Amino acid sequence: MRAEDGTTLVEVDDLADIARGAAVLGTGGGGDPHIGRLLAAAALRRHGPVRLTALADLPDDAVVLPVAMMGAPTVMLEKLPSTEQVGLAVATLTRHLGLEVTHIACDEAGGVNSLIPFVAAAELGLPLVDADGMGRAFPELQMTLPTLYGIRGTPMSIVDEKGNSGVFDTIDNTWAERLARTATVEMGCSAMISNYAMSGAQARESLVGGTLSLCAALGRTLAAARGSDDPVGPLVAHLGGRVLFSGKVSDVSRRTTSGFARGEARVDGAGADAGSTLLLQFQNENLVAERDGELVATVPDLICALDTVTGEAVTTEALRYGHRITVIAAPCDPRWQSPEGLALAGPRVFGYDVDPVRVLPPAAVPA
Amino acid sequence: MRAEDGTTLVEVDDLADIARGAAVLGTGGGGDPHIGRLLAAAALRRHGPVRLTALADLPDDAVVLPVAMMGAPTVMLEKLPSTEQVGLAVATLTRHLGLEVTHIACDEAGGVNSLIPFVAAAELGLPLVDADGMGRAFPELQMTLPTLYGIRGTPMSIVDEKGNSGVFDTIDNTWAERLARTATVEMGCSAMISNYAMSGAQARESLVGGTLSLCAALGRTLAAARGSDDPVGPLVAHLGGRVLFSGKVSDVSRRTTSGFARGEARVDGAGADAGSTLLLQFQNENLVAERDGELVATVPDLICALDTVTGEAVTTEALRYGHRITVIAAPCDPRWQSPEGLALAGPRVFGYDVDPVRVLPPAAVPA
Repeated sequence: MRAEDGTTLVEVDDLADIARGAAVLGTGGGGDPHIGRLLAAAALRRHGPVRLTALADLPDDAVVLPVAMMGAPTVMLEKLPSTEQVGLAVATLTRHLGLEVTHIACDEAGGVNSLIPFVAAAELGLPLVDADGMGRAFPELQMTLPTLYGIRGTPMSIVDEKGNSGVFDTIDNTWAERLARTATVEMGCSAMISNYAMSGAQARESLVGGTLSLCAALGRTLAAARGSDDPVGPLVAHLGGRVLFSGKVSDVSRRTTSGFARGEARVDGAGADAGSTLLLQFQNENLVAERDGELVATVPDLICALDTVTGEAVTTEALRYGHRITVIAAPCDPRWQSPEGLALAGPRVFGYDVDPVRVLPPAAVPA
Repeated sequence: MRAEDGTTLVEVDDLADIARGAAVLGTGGGGDPHIGRLLAAAALRRHGPVRLTALADLPDDAVVLPVAMMGAPTVMLEKLPSTEQVGLAVATLTRHLGLEVTHIACDEAGGVNSLIPFVAAAELGLPLVDADGMGRAFPELQMTLPTLYGIRGTPMSIVDEKGNSGVFDTIDNTWAERLARTATVEMGCSAMISNYAMSGAQARESLVGGTLSLCAALGRTLAAARGSDDPVGPLVAHLGGRVLFSGKVSDVSRRTTSGFARGEARVDGAGADAGSTLLLQFQNENLVAERDGELVATVPDLICALDTVTGEAVTTEALRYGHRITVIAAPCDPRWQSPEGLALAGPRVFGYDVDPVRVLPPAAVPA
């Protein structure tokens, strides 16, 4: 990334770091970083670098349009999105809104969903806001900080790789999730969407600033630590998190249901964790981690599985028997730990009747 | 109905006949005539009579917009549509198309789906085309004569009673059915749609002319025969059809699956049919009739169950044990018996590996 005229330019060579860092924040979901990088690299090679706009620099009247993939990451591995599909998602929504878009944005962090916005920005020649709507990834559309600020997720567009498209306008963001999820399933379990169109003022208030720069920095941290004695430690320090467990995956059950990849992985401890077992449960993203039956981390904090040797994030669809992984937890954006944030994406929302387990004690969370 | 300035005006008092006749052409589907009449009567009382335009009188550049209910008729009985919902379906599509609508039209004949267009026409103060897209009812969106003429069913709007709306634009009419059906199911198994927007020239070519007048005439025929020795005969003669069977319903199995009412009814013969059994299988509409194991009628011809005493059509969701019914068959629009018509809505499309059984011999079908 290089500075020019007070903004930052992202070039093809920066994408590997961004994808790698985004996959960490994706907490198992948000798509495969390899696919995300390939898509974005193709777009940047064709159209040149993408200009990042800092969240604080967005004018009040900017028209900000996020773009993302929706569906089961397991399916996205085989049914690749196309750059045309990204363009169609944006064009379908802008035509419906009758607005001139000034900035592209990112709904969630993740190996694909942090990179798809680069494709849209490059294709349309628009700047990309250095931010995202969660500071992590979550499996459902309404689970965004903009929802907490009363920002409507619709009108939203949804398009498939065959050329089918739809626009939904719903009474709340949960209905957007319901209708878009069933459409996604019918479209073949993955689709491209554009939603949460918002003004610059709304974006400044509701998004998490600096996410894309953070992804790049995390990616560089991982790259620098690779091959060292501790390929994971510097990343954990960078995130202000902690290591939960290290071991070998002994069992994975995963199924694609209702448009999600749901399941759990069992990890047999190694080294200091020998004799213990970690159970990781996920719905696209890792939701809860249980060590020997005791909860050690839950949403909304970030729970990430990293390859013990390379430090690279392992997405939930890539977890497999025999994989040596280190599971870490890191604090989420503090707004997620508010009562409203927990009502939207706390453990109870996912069916776990427990209070959230936090990496940072509540006292350390700024008001 | 009264003539004025060369066109026909439909008034509140005409609606009962139209609903009654439409339920016959609905072949078991297309919705309950009582509900259809109530909805249309409320709209006509508020806004005055609706002007019918003969198909032949449509100017080439007319902008014709059909409106209909989609879903399981079993559900429509309990979750009633509202006139606001009709208006939202039309407004959502016209806004998307950016076109000024000149005429409302009717997708299919049926107790609700022939009457919903009266609601739209009254609410919007527009004339209604005296025609429909099938000459009967069929369970799936792509099963229309306009599909045979290459007319696109999308962009289409779909709205629910809560205020959620969507617009689909698909690569073919079968994809319109797939995406709209899943949305309908998620919306609670019934939804209001507007689709097959077309020019006057396209309407003249592809629609079945005179359907609404025919509904009214059939309704009057039924009313006149009521209380006579043969409440069904004059209707059968009017349709050019024949009586298949008369008896008492001895079993009905019906389930609401994938947004349809599917099932079958068994009828034990009475009078001349004593000792025989008729099996009627349906998916919203009656699809095939088997007498003692032998097929006696199939789609695309019309198969209608009529109350033996009153002559009124009995919709598939109203069939019940002990009901005395007379099952009749009547010829469909001849275009449905063409190879292309049968490929779209013949018995094989519904999973019956048989050639169609016809009321009229093929030689009698005009080319």
